[in-house]
Amino acid sequence: MSGAYREAGVDLDAARRATDLIRDLASGASRPEVVEGVGGFAGLFDLGGGRMLAAATDGVGTKLDLARRLGRLGTVGIDLVAMCANDVVCTGAEPLFFLDYLAVGRLVPEEAAGVVGGIAEGCRRAGCALLGGETAEHPGVMDAEQLDLAGFCVGTVARDATLGPHRVGEGDLLVGLPSTGPHANGYSLIRRLVEGLDLEAPAPWSGRALAEELLEPTAIYVRPVLEAVRAGLVSAAAHITGGGLVENLPRALPRGLGADLDRASWDVPEVFKFLQERGDIPEEDMARTFNLGLGMILVVPDERVLDPLSSAGLEASVVGRVAAGEGVRW
Amino acid sequence: MSGAYREAGVDLDAARRATDLIRDLASGASRPEVVEGVGGFAGLFDLGGGRMLAAATDGVGTKLDLARRLGRLGTVGIDLVAMCANDVVCTGAEPLFFLDYLAVGRLVPEEAAGVVGGIAEGCRRAGCALLGGETAEHPGVMDAEQLDLAGFCVGTVARDATLGPHRVGEGDLLVGLPSTGPHANGYSLIRRLVEGLDLEAPAPWSGRALAEELLEPTAIYVRPVLEAVRAGLVSAAAHITGGGLVENLPRALPRGLGADLDRASWDVPEVFKFLQERGDIPEEDMARTFNLGLGMILVVPDERVLDPLSSAGLEASVVGRVAAGEGVRW
Repeated sequence: MSGAYREAGVDLDAARRATDLIRDLASGASRPEVVEGVGGFAGLFDLGGGRMLAAATDGVGTKLDLARRLGRLGTVGIDLVAMCANDVVCTGAEPLFFLDYLAVGRLVPEEAAGVVGGIAEGCRRAGCALLGGETAEHPGVMDAEQLDLAGFCVGTVARDATLGPHRVGEGDLLVGLPSTGPHANGYSLIRRLVEGLDLEAPAPWSGRALAEELLEPTAIYVRPVLEAVRAGLVSAAAHITGGGLVENLPRALPRGLGADLDRASWDVPEVFKFLQERGDIPEEDMARTFNLGLGMILVVPDERVLDPLSSAGLEASVVGRVAAGEGVRW
Repeated sequence: MSGAYREAGVDLDAARRATDLIRDLASGASRPEVVEGVGGFAGLFDLGGGRMLAAATDGVGTKLDLARRLGRLGTVGIDLVAMCANDVVCTGAEPLFFLDYLAVGRLVPEEAAGVVGGIAEGCRRAGCALLGGETAEHPGVMDAEQLDLAGFCVGTVARDATLGPHRVGEGDLLVGLPSTGPHANGYSLIRRLVEGLDLEAPAPWSGRALAEELLEPTAIYVRPVLEAVRAGLVSAAAHITGGGLVENLPRALPRGLGADLDRASWDVPEVFKFLQERGDIPEEDMARTFNLGLGMILVVPDERVLDPLSSAGLEASVVGRVAAGEGVRW
């Protein structure tokens, strides 16, 4: 699929095959309260009494390794919370709490605390509690300086307020929320593209160090999106992560409907143009790897949602429309 | 602390320092619903309406690496669920769902599915749903064959049924539940102790391959413990993991009270004697690293709990008593 990404060592076809195998295994370990076919960004579990739990897990991919090598581990925790909490809020749920898992080759308490400091900041931004975590030392298995990081987030939503494809109809608008950069996706490719560059040198488009541009933490959309959800202005939402708009936007749409995007309606941030030029990457690969400037898409019945988002400081704009025919077109 | 364990590369003092730093960070990212000072094995979050959520996260340490090198990855998923679900049930909560995070250097779909197959089996044993998961490929950061695994479990308990130190009094009995081996703790030491041995050779005490003895999956105590909890027979519970009885049992006891253990009341399984002899490990270190045959301790007011546990096929026995003075004595 994504040739450039496969060259960077990430095999998306293997990932799809694994996903299929794993889906079958999971269906053999279910319970009646598990809600199938709704949401898609987070698992939904019916607690009874009209209340659902939404849960998501994710890591930050190899952005963690870039942060480690640059000695800037303080903000990857924000990315970690973002990857999970943005998934949870796509169901309409309010994130309640978060847990983290940190594995290290050799435990340096101050370094671990640096990572968890970022996680705590991410939790504050998402409005959820850092309820627990595990820090594990794996000597002889991981290199001394190696790290791995996973996060888990649980939220709650009223059953009849759950967002998803079941609420979406033809003609609905697609509202894009600006990303802060590549977020935490595509970093195996990014790391290859910037190999040999001085990342402390200023980025030509901003004057900030390239390292800062590349480690800019993922936007956490929870508060403004929840506000719009509670005002009844949102039908569904798609968190744009690995696979880009092409693969993530359809997860918020019902069968038979797709998305017509107006590519001229938003600016692709300079960091993506820089990466594309560095690797001479085809448009198609860019679109299947990166968010290209839109970190979340809200599917809404009309433009009323723009006001509260704007009041919350988000430069959201209509970037397309739901139309007949599956897939994403631009 | 544990000299043998430090030699194996695990620094328990660093772990404690990290825990202290992280506790402060977490308290800066809390919510009013977080219940402090109860439980201790899982985080508790008050949902309102008399209902609490309990959540825990854990990995399987370097047991995963042993399983990988032996080409027996099919049951570490059971260990993963056990480590989390046994923590959750210590609060009295019923595990509802589980999510897994699997990171690999290179994704081999059938291998990932093998690991997740074990997780699904663990979920069936614990009675919880496998609600979601993430499989991440980290090329160039992890070696191709390297794996990391984290799990996350959420349960629910009525507020006034929550187990914990607040229910425990002097004279309460300590009931030990048999472990199936080292469970998923102490494997950095175990891997060093068995270095150079042919692990496919039969263990002298059982005739089973040493590999099978060492990879025997962790017991999942959820069903029998929940049954006893629902019958009102349990005051508190301690999941005996890293740190052994010495460090985990006090987490189920209130300030001022400790445990008098009768060491003659249970048999230490042969696998622990074998490991102790291999490494000439002092008793004190053994007790701070391994469960020594008791994977969970229930704190109970009287012996009535023994009948239902026995009916559930667990050879539980009274192994001690709660007494004045903190700490574990035997």
